[in-house]
Amino acid sequence: MANTDSVRIRVFSLNCWGIRVLSKQCGQRYTMIGDMLCKEEHDIVLLQEVWSEKDFLFLKKKLSCSHPHSSYFKSGVIGSGLALFSKHRIHDTFLYRFSLNGYPYMAHHGDWFGGKAVGMAVVNIRGLTAHVYVTHLHAEYCREKDSYLPHRVVQAWELQKFVRHTSVGADLVILGGDLNMHPQDLGTRLLRSYTGLRDSYVETEKFDGCEGGVTLIADNPFTNKKELIPFETGIRIDYILFKGSSKVDLHCDSMVTTKGSIPDHPFPYSDHEALTSELRLEQHAAQETRKDQHYDDKDTNAARVAELVDIVTEARTEVKVGLHCAERMRFTATRTGIMGLALLILELAIAAVPWLALGAEQPFPLTSFYLLAALCFAILLTTFMLYIFYTMELKSLQGAEDQMRLAVGSLQENLRGFPLAQPQDSQRKPPEGLSAVSAVEPEE
Amino acid sequence: MANTDSVRIRVFSLNCWGIRVLSKQCGQRYTMIGDMLCKEEHDIVLLQEVWSEKDFLFLKKKLSCSHPHSSYFKSGVIGSGLALFSKHRIHDTFLYRFSLNGYPYMAHHGDWFGGKAVGMAVVNIRGLTAHVYVTHLHAEYCREKDSYLPHRVVQAWELQKFVRHTSVGADLVILGGDLNMHPQDLGTRLLRSYTGLRDSYVETEKFDGCEGGVTLIADNPFTNKKELIPFETGIRIDYILFKGSSKVDLHCDSMVTTKGSIPDHPFPYSDHEALTSELRLEQHAAQETRKDQHYDDKDTNAARVAELVDIVTEARTEVKVGLHCAERMRFTATRTGIMGLALLILELAIAAVPWLALGAEQPFPLTSFYLLAALCFAILLTTFMLYIFYTMELKSLQGAEDQMRLAVGSLQENLRGFPLAQPQDSQRKPPEGLSAVSAVEPEE
Repeated sequence: MANTDSVRIRVFSLNCWGIRVLSKQCGQRYTMIGDMLCKEEHDIVLLQEVWSEKDFLFLKKKLSCSHPHSSYFKSGVIGSGLALFSKHRIHDTFLYRFSLNGYPYMAHHGDWFGGKAVGMAVVNIRGLTAHVYVTHLHAEYCREKDSYLPHRVVQAWELQKFVRHTSVGADLVILGGDLNMHPQDLGTRLLRSYTGLRDSYVETEKFDGCEGGVTLIADNPFTNKKELIPFETGIRIDYILFKGSSKVDLHCDSMVTTKGSIPDHPFPYSDHEALTSELRLEQHAAQETRKDQHYDDKDTNAARVAELVDIVTEARTEVKVGLHCAERMRFTATRTGIMGLALLILELAIAAVPWLALGAEQPFPLTSFYLLAALCFAILLTTFMLYIFYTMELKSLQGAEDQMRLAVGSLQENLRGFPLAQPQDSQRKPPEGLSAVSAVEPEE
Repeated sequence: MANTDSVRIRVFSLNCWGIRVLSKQCGQRYTMIGDMLCKEEHDIVLLQEVWSEKDFLFLKKKLSCSHPHSSYFKSGVIGSGLALFSKHRIHDTFLYRFSLNGYPYMAHHGDWFGGKAVGMAVVNIRGLTAHVYVTHLHAEYCREKDSYLPHRVVQAWELQKFVRHTSVGADLVILGGDLNMHPQDLGTRLLRSYTGLRDSYVETEKFDGCEGGVTLIADNPFTNKKELIPFETGIRIDYILFKGSSKVDLHCDSMVTTKGSIPDHPFPYSDHEALTSELRLEQHAAQETRKDQHYDDKDTNAARVAELVDIVTEARTEVKVGLHCAERMRFTATRTGIMGLALLILELAIAAVPWLALGAEQPFPLTSFYLLAALCFAILLTTFMLYIFYTMELKSLQGAEDQMRLAVGSLQENLRGFPLAQPQDSQRKPPEGLSAVSAVEPEE
């Protein structure tokens, strides 16, 4: 493997906790973040929870010299909160909105209004095409009884699909953001195994940060300590992932995270810790690399596919739990709606029958009559909208489950005898029809 | 160019008009469609408006021998209506839901409930990886005053983005469906120019069908003749598009459409005509092809990019019209909501003030009081939901406009001096950072 060139790129990721009014010291923190980014001049800056476009525009103005290229990904009611700044030219962007993202009536959680998504930018880094992804998945509010788990698993499923299908032509792939999943959580395994993306924290040669790479820590004055129980030291839910290609080898030389406080500042940048990874790119001649690796890795591929089958099966089970739950909720909505309708009919009958049969005397006070009718209409309208919403949720869950079933079938067929990789033309694309397992072949 | 192999694949596309109860002879038509597909044994069958999953399952059972592989794409409230049947193994599927798709309160049009999308399947056709797309865009109900035009343009924009970014690794690309756009409409030009997809009807050597390739014709007993005015002979809105790759040349040898009636049957398959394209694949050695073409096409590339700049600029203008319209609608909703709130406050004041100041006597009848209060609440709830909906619409339109602005900038920069194609490594991926114009390089 001939290293003809070596280039270093620095990637930064931070969940900015940018809810105007509600987030503490929001304005001051954006000023601090802007100053730091301006000074540090990372190649790629991936931000999440930049909920206000004004804050994005503030940063854009502040970083106009250090990071002349940027993208703000708009989605949902208040935006996806995703922003990307780059020292290098952005040639194209694309946004994929996750099909499931919580419930609109859970307004205090607010995720639904954020329109969670994954944003992609095609960036030209010194002659190489980098596909850079920034994402933010649905939050986990209660680990023991996580009613959003099926949604987050479907988000992770869609995320891996999107990354896998849109990164085929890339020389290098970088994904950063707040996944709201621990390193060993189902969604993280799904994403990493399917895409072949490598974790900066795991791969780095030098690490300077909190123990275990945690990014939501008790030492941060902005974090809610209760939410971290039982993980007293903190949890790792923010990531910078990467992979190379047949043209480029990618290594993580060092990784740094903040530790809950910033020197010379009264408070940190956010309630999450900031991540910085230094990646080293080694370009090499395209022809000579892959063949050796192909034969080296052939033996381990079967094990990888088998592991992937297990992970997808686990994800499918989780989606089925979600399906069951959504069906139950839709049934409850339907039943309540029918009860509302029955009540309305009963009321109308009581009001109408004496008038028809016995005379004009009203059987119960007009006030109660109108209040009850208004209540019935409110029930009917609410349950109708809930029915619509749950039906859409069901469709998305069913769609994901169908895709997972197909994926498991395809993987199992590969296990049964299809060759897992083919020497010819395996550099840019999956071998014939095996794109479902393309990522289980090591990309570098 | 050495043709080492020649393979023929037949692709079928039909908008099935499958609204149970509402569509005429729905059941009989599905039986006819199933019989025909079973007999014809097309390689790829792309169906739209298969609204009921039961009908999909009916076809799936009927086609279990001829087309053992299938995918039904679930989305929205009643599904995307998209179905795909294949003689060849499907290894992976993916669905992209368009961010804009009409309005939920336009229930009589129903598009919003359908969750319009583009479905993708990775199909292995005789050792080649085919990326097959099936799609259905928002209907056009009034060409003169088409309030859905900005939505359809954004759908076409997202469609080209999705196809372009997910088809990099494909040996051949096939897209079929009901685009609800005429051949020279903005969205069709956007899709074709950006992706490099070629139109079967334009490219075919032999054509047997209605004049002009029209697929919605007055001769069809199911079509609404009034909707076709002023296009008396009919309109062409259903397409089969295709493109090859550096590995495969693709030609359309023949194309056939139905002509409003089916021999030996009392009525046609649908209100749309069915399309069948026969594509001929010529595989060749990967190395020798692209270089010649590169130099041949260099001169025409600038003209193509300039054309693309014009098309994207036109699309951007249309999206701006949509933005203006959505802003106006949101303003109207806000104003109505404020009026509802003012009315409620006024009513409460009238009701409360005499009670507080003058005694317990009610200033207006209780019945009117409650009816008015219910009306105010209904206004507040409705306008609140409309506000949420229009804000989401605005976010999507703004996002598309941002992407278009970036695209125009990127294209113009290319025009100003960047090389449009590079000889090395141009076979599988766009040249460095030029993925925005990758499609303007001819793919074959």
